[in-house]
Amino acid sequence: MTDETESGFAELDLDRAQRRGYPEAVLCHGKTPGQVGAIAATLREHGARTLFTRATPEHARAVRTELPDAFYADDCGLLAWPPQPPQPVGGQVLVVAAGTADHAVAREALLTARHLGRPAELIMDVGVAGLHRVLAKQEALRAARVIVVVAGMDGALPAVVAGLVAAPVVAVPTSTGYGAAFGGLAALLGMLNSCAPGVGVVNIDNGYGAGHLAAQIAAPA
Amino acid sequence: MTDETESGFAELDLDRAQRRGYPEAVLCHGKTPGQVGAIAATLREHGARTLFTRATPEHARAVRTELPDAFYADDCGLLAWPPQPPQPVGGQVLVVAAGTADHAVAREALLTARHLGRPAELIMDVGVAGLHRVLAKQEALRAARVIVVVAGMDGALPAVVAGLVAAPVVAVPTSTGYGAAFGGLAALLGMLNSCAPGVGVVNIDNGYGAGHLAAQIAAPA
Amino acid sequence: MTDETESGFAELDLDRAQRRGYPEAVLCHGKTPGQVGAIAATLREHGARTLFTRATPEHARAVRTELPDAFYADDCGLLAWPPQPPQPVGGQVLVVAAGTADHAVAREALLTARHLGRPAELIMDVGVAGLHRVLAKQEALRAARVIVVVAGMDGALPAVVAGLVAAPVVAVPTSTGYGAAFGGLAALLGMLNSCAPGVGVVNIDNGYGAGHLAAQIAAPA
Amino acid sequence: MTDETESGFAELDLDRAQRRGYPEAVLCHGKTPGQVGAIAATLREHGARTLFTRATPEHARAVRTELPDAFYADDCGLLAWPPQPPQPVGGQVLVVAAGTADHAVAREALLTARHLGRPAELIMDVGVAGLHRVLAKQEALRAARVIVVVAGMDGALPAVVAGLVAAPVVAVPTSTGYGAAFGGLAALLGMLNSCAPGVGVVNIDNGYGAGHLAAQIAAPA
Amino acid sequence: MTDETESGFAELDLDRAQRRGYPEAVLCHGKTPGQVGAIAATLREHGARTLFTRATPEHARAVRTELPDAFYADDCGLLAWPPQPPQPVGGQVLVVAAGTADHAVAREALLTARHLGRPAELIMDVGVAGLHRVLAKQEALRAARVIVVVAGMDGALPAVVAGLVAAPVVAVPTSTGYGAAFGGLAALLGMLNSCAPGVGVVNIDNGYGAGHLAAQIAAPA
Amino acid sequence: MTDETESGFAELDLDRAQRRGYPEAVLCHGKTPGQVGAIAATLREHGARTLFTRATPEHARAVRTELPDAFYADDCGLLAWPPQPPQPVGGQVLVVAAGTADHAVAREALLTARHLGRPAELIMDVGVAGLHRVLAKQEALRAARVIVVVAGMDGALPAVVAGLVAAPVVAVPTSTGYGAAFGGLAALLGMLNSCAPGVGVVNIDNGYGAGHLAAQIAAPA
Amino acid sequence: MTDETESGFAELDLDRAQRRGYPEAVLCHGKTPGQVGAIAATLREHGARTLFTRATPEHARAVRTELPDAFYADDCGLLAWPPQPPQPVGGQVLVVAAGTADHAVAREALLTARHLGRPAELIMDVGVAGLHRVLAKQEALRAARVIVVVAGMDGALPAVVAGLVAAPVVAVPTSTGYGAAFGGLAALLGMLNSCAPGVGVVNIDNGYGAGHLAAQIAAPA
Amino acid sequence: MTDETESGFAELDLDRAQRRGYPEAVLCHGKTPGQVGAIAATLREHGARTLFTRATPEHARAVRTELPDAFYADDCGLLAWPPQPPQPVGGQVLVVAAGTADHAVAREALLTARHLGRPAELIMDVGVAGLHRVLAKQEALRAARVIVVVAGMDGALPAVVAGLVAAPVVAVPTSTGYGAAFGGLAALLGMLNSCAPGVGVVNIDNGYGAGHLAAQIAAPA
Repeated sequence: MTDETESGFAELDLDRAQRRGYPEAVLCHGKTPGQVGAIAATLREHGARTLFTRATPEHARAVRTELPDAFYADDCGLLAWPPQPPQPVGGQVLVVAAGTADHAVAREALLTARHLGRPAELIMDVGVAGLHRVLAKQEALRAARVIVVVAGMDGALPAVVAGLVAAPVVAVPTSTGYGAAFGGLAALLGMLNSCAPGVGVVNIDNGYGAGHLAAQIAAPA
Repeated sequence: MTDETESGFAELDLDRAQRRGYPEAVLCHGKTPGQVGAIAATLREHGARTLFTRATPEHARAVRTELPDAFYADDCGLLAWPPQPPQPVGGQVLVVAAGTADHAVAREALLTARHLGRPAELIMDVGVAGLHRVLAKQEALRAARVIVVVAGMDGALPAVVAGLVAAPVVAVPTSTGYGAAFGGLAALLGMLNSCAPGVGVVNIDNGYGAGHLAAQIAAPA
Repeated sequence: MTDETESGFAELDLDRAQRRGYPEAVLCHGKTPGQVGAIAATLREHGARTLFTRATPEHARAVRTELPDAFYADDCGLLAWPPQPPQPVGGQVLVVAAGTADHAVAREALLTARHLGRPAELIMDVGVAGLHRVLAKQEALRAARVIVVVAGMDGALPAVVAGLVAAPVVAVPTSTGYGAAFGGLAALLGMLNSCAPGVGVVNIDNGYGAGHLAAQIAAPA
Repeated sequence: MTDETESGFAELDLDRAQRRGYPEAVLCHGKTPGQVGAIAATLREHGARTLFTRATPEHARAVRTELPDAFYADDCGLLAWPPQPPQPVGGQVLVVAAGTADHAVAREALLTARHLGRPAELIMDVGVAGLHRVLAKQEALRAARVIVVVAGMDGALPAVVAGLVAAPVVAVPTSTGYGAAFGGLAALLGMLNSCAPGVGVVNIDNGYGAGHLAAQIAAPA
Repeated sequence: MTDETESGFAELDLDRAQRRGYPEAVLCHGKTPGQVGAIAATLREHGARTLFTRATPEHARAVRTELPDAFYADDCGLLAWPPQPPQPVGGQVLVVAAGTADHAVAREALLTARHLGRPAELIMDVGVAGLHRVLAKQEALRAARVIVVVAGMDGALPAVVAGLVAAPVVAVPTSTGYGAAFGGLAALLGMLNSCAPGVGVVNIDNGYGAGHLAAQIAAPA
Repeated sequence: MTDETESGFAELDLDRAQRRGYPEAVLCHGKTPGQVGAIAATLREHGARTLFTRATPEHARAVRTELPDAFYADDCGLLAWPPQPPQPVGGQVLVVAAGTADHAVAREALLTARHLGRPAELIMDVGVAGLHRVLAKQEALRAARVIVVVAGMDGALPAVVAGLVAAPVVAVPTSTGYGAAFGGLAALLGMLNSCAPGVGVVNIDNGYGAGHLAAQIAAPA
Repeated sequence: MTDETESGFAELDLDRAQRRGYPEAVLCHGKTPGQVGAIAATLREHGARTLFTRATPEHARAVRTELPDAFYADDCGLLAWPPQPPQPVGGQVLVVAAGTADHAVAREALLTARHLGRPAELIMDVGVAGLHRVLAKQEALRAARVIVVVAGMDGALPAVVAGLVAAPVVAVPTSTGYGAAFGGLAALLGMLNSCAPGVGVVNIDNGYGAGHLAAQIAAPA
Repeated sequence: MTDETESGFAELDLDRAQRRGYPEAVLCHGKTPGQVGAIAATLREHGARTLFTRATPEHARAVRTELPDAFYADDCGLLAWPPQPPQPVGGQVLVVAAGTADHAVAREALLTARHLGRPAELIMDVGVAGLHRVLAKQEALRAARVIVVVAGMDGALPAVVAGLVAAPVVAVPTSTGYGAAFGGLAALLGMLNSCAPGVGVVNIDNGYGAGHLAAQIAAPA
């Protein structure tokens, strides 16, 4: 019995780069390595710049079978092809993270912004439990065109950062923590209720989305 | 000590086909392979057309020990016996899915509709992030008697589809996504609040339920 | 200071009737009587058949200033213009409600189905606490092309009805109840988890959506 | 470094049988096999009738090292010592379950009631999707002093049963189901909002608690 | 235009008393005074003993227009007709409440048990913040056949009471409290997780349901 | 018909002052003015120092009918009798609040601490959106024995304060805010997940509880 | 008795304009008119440009007593002083709203962006139920530097808009809708899970926050 | 390609001991063993007293590679370096736990208090289901300067303890339980709604936070 009618399972949005000005990204989470590998094969044919996010090592192997020179950052699950980011243009994207446990998400935001063509830097471990740490970085904070703030637990850092600068803040709640952190819900709600204006929130652990939004905000005029 | 008093653990609803006009289905999730195998043995005796849903390979082995010719779609965990669907009658069931990660649920809906006797087709990868994809399928959408729309994350596709057609839409939220997707809750709420009328929602990941409801809607007069 | 730039606040979807085959509806909830009245004035100019849902008496007055002959069912807040429903065509829509407190929502579904052109009837007070009541209505249930089931509290009625018939069931949870009914959430979850297949769920208290979906399901071939 | 000050980690409530009239029970879930084994050793010294609930095979081995003749029902994780239930006295406890996936919880309730000294029986597979099944058991239902109803998914069965009998109903929601079942929350809310009075609800999957409560309700005068 | 097809909106379950052994009750919450009055008129014709729960003074006036001698307890919204409870038979129902704010719910339980034919008494203000209060009532607690425990806020009282007695406990969470009491949710969850077995829980503020269940438990053999 | 059996509805915990060392408090929320007045009358007979919390003007009138010299702080609903707080002893209680909308809750904490015998002061408007404000108060923060921090919205202030001092922090989430503040839930979760240790949380808007706990912490040795 | 120790209840963050480059805003919700009026008086002394958000007519009266020429947009509760926005500089802010019920929130975003110095325009009624409406506005969408998308119910519009343009999108969920809209929660979750990247989300109904963030994104280089 | 710009991933807050008077703690949960080992190496260089919490055996191995004499309590995942706690000063910290399943969290609180310099003791198994157990410990309870109460399930113990003593209570909800315990949410809500004042709550399973707060409360004057 042939029980399939559709021709192919993944109709890629290949003109997205032209329509939106940014490359396609493939969320590997929820897809099998086989599905991801098939998408990589299609991309190779079209030569389109692409990111693969939340890629496990199995996903990475499947992609690299098709795109052997793809860059894989195993600390955050990001695959990029072609491996080199474009020459950076536009304003500075600064990623700041509250703690070491937020490192992977912060890295995903950093690399996304770079592969979308922005100059981007990362500052770690400036959580509000020791305010002197973030206060010591005010010069860097004020120099950025946009700041991505990554934090879990109480999610208090974006409000503190937003209160110090004129630039917009992209807040990324992380699932860091336990118990009443409820998988990032506490941080998410904290960020949505930031007592300082100028904070836009993305999904829990969504470093890719934050890096993408920051790249758009810092785009050259 | 004999500590059992009941005669058998599964009293099947064997006259359901007669009462409702559709075959029985056995949800394997939550049952042991042994329990499922025993049900299959009973069915074999009665010769009743049956679907087994959410069957793991272990469940499938147990069923096929009793019903060796049962059809098993391992991409969506559906077992069908007898293996061939009946000759299709009634209106066209069209299943559309937002992304590759929704493939398994969409397949479960598709196969269910076919095994319940409807002509059914599947269109993949028409998520709203690239509207041109769904707009390109309007002819197929308008030709269907009922459309099953499968989507996770923001669950926005059913509202868009319902706004384009006269046919009823059966919406299936999926657990695709992470973080504030909350296992499909975001998609579920989005679909329940569809700004376009004409959308009936089934449980998260319930491709079987959607295919069944669609088959009832598209039943011949 | 003139601080407005947009020309008009409500761009109506006037070709919806042509595109979808069903008239426009205006959800009055969340709109001021002034806004609703202005919409009514626009509709009068175009002569388009329209429903206004969740209309308070203030909304109704504003509409009738523009459309004096509009029909207003004050027990469920529905306004219809023109006041007479079209000649019924298609299959029978049967609305059944668990209890008296579900009457308004059931009426909204009933009138919506009629004003969208279907023959429709209503059966009240068949909650599962007294099973004999719903069992006594099996003949009517089996004669319907589609059944809208309205229930609050435990939301158990749709599963019971769906288990008795071949027709599809549109389930409407209501906010009837208190405490752990959580404004209809308990009924909503119960219906989404119906142990009988063939149930599509709409939003809490959404009689309009249920009537609309039922009218589409029962549409003439 | 000796960093412990407490003498023993588990101060058992050994006079509970005298104070409440029912034996102690040890919830194994959340305890290590070592902790459970130590409790069993203490019990052996005191000779107190005891149940161990939610015991994994590892827990069971640890208990049987101390109490070799303990009875272990591996289908529901209940250990009983002494292995034989007492001679039954009091009214009839009837356990009814909606589906096969509820079997383990129903068995826990059944065995608990028996080991607490009541005559108890079990009826399986009477879910509301096929009403004729529960209606066929009305004689047994009406003969019971108390009925334990075990159901997952929509949790509709207790309301239906309570509407048929004069006896009190103890309702046990189960974590059966998926998606919007939310681990038993849907069934729990459904049961708390039962449209028929006479239903007392225990925790999700708490067969032990239901069997205990039923035994108290059916206690001899 | 006649837009109604149903003959009457409330089909009463008048043989419930015969089938279940307990009188019908009408939940006034969610019904209009007119609807409740019409039900009262029907009851008068049939002479059936009935309770009306959650009746506002407006509901009460509508009922008394039809049943002038109905008893109305305005502190808990209960109407009873005929006004006198039957001669008490069966075991003792004891209602205990944690605090003054739980008084209305406790009263509803007390009066329900009495009007369903049980001897019933009430003890107020024995919350666990002052343990000596509940400890001082142990004699009364131990004399009861069943105990209804009414508490809001932390909902800790049922576990404490259940740990002191052999009788079953019916727990009623109340919406007393504020903030993280979440309208009774905290008390509800506390009671469902009672560390003492022997507790069956009813809906938040559902004194009627608790009194009814207690009356069934304490029914004469 | 006399349908009451209990002698009095409110059995006060009058020896609480002796047992716990702190006076009784009466939560007026959820009680009628009549009930509160009757409690006040009983207190007058016993001469026990008492606080009434969340008292509306109607509650206040009822109390003052019995205790005419009671102090009523209408900005936070606290009644105290006798009106003068005792001579302060013990460590300094410092209450700090994030914003003007938190004023009432902060005042309730302040007055409670004073009426329980502690020296207490209040600092307003030091929310983290302008960090310089809280940094300017470090001297006062470091001088306190315990700090009560009152904040709504993101609830970020307690973590910041706790990171600056050695003293314990009592955090009070407030229902300030809207939308995803969810009535104080966001602030509550933020405080429970404080990335700085040393924070104990009380219920949303529970200024009384915070003041009481602070008074216990700052009690003289 | 003087029981106050703090000097003033509202320590304004008057150097915020200098530190962040944007004027202060006062959230009136949760403050009394008296408190808001006192803040207005302080502002008058300092001459600082200020917005008052969520101001009721009573708040507005209190502000205008101190600042008689303040501009009050009563359709969205915004007060601005001085009344004229500054000369617009920077990129274009485009506000689009799904439906008429989102008008107030959209207006708050529009006016905020203008009073923070940006050119800003508003497009209404482009909900996804009629896709042709938003598709007809593509030219305007593509011309904007940043787009604020305001939508309730399913919150699907931001994903659709973000998929069409290169500019960043600021998404504002609104509390429009009923039932399972859960006060904007459904829209919020939908927006956080947008299947198109480039969406930053603010709090439910937070038009001010969206307008502020948009003004920062569109700030001149 | 070098894709890292930051110098080091963990900027430790090494002057915290000086600023707050308590040593730093490293939450291992969410960090890799490599990250934790690198932190341990940095600490060794600075010689700062440190706790590592929620350390798995893998984390412990990584720490002990750098700090070979570190103390590891494998029953609660706490690492301490230097291994010996300081000489105890200040008031008595008493940790009491409801059941054996709460042992690990109670131990974490106990050891934290000791390593922060307080005399601390532990009492196990005093859950409220057998009140005589906690009542038998009243002398020890009354002798403590602060009491940490650890409980899961219904979370009722802190209210009972707080009602017996003058000392402040630090309540720790645990994730003990199943079903409607919702991972500790039920206990958390119960504790936040304690009907006895004097209870400060920390995060679910946060023994470290409770021990830290208790050490601050019991600090010497």
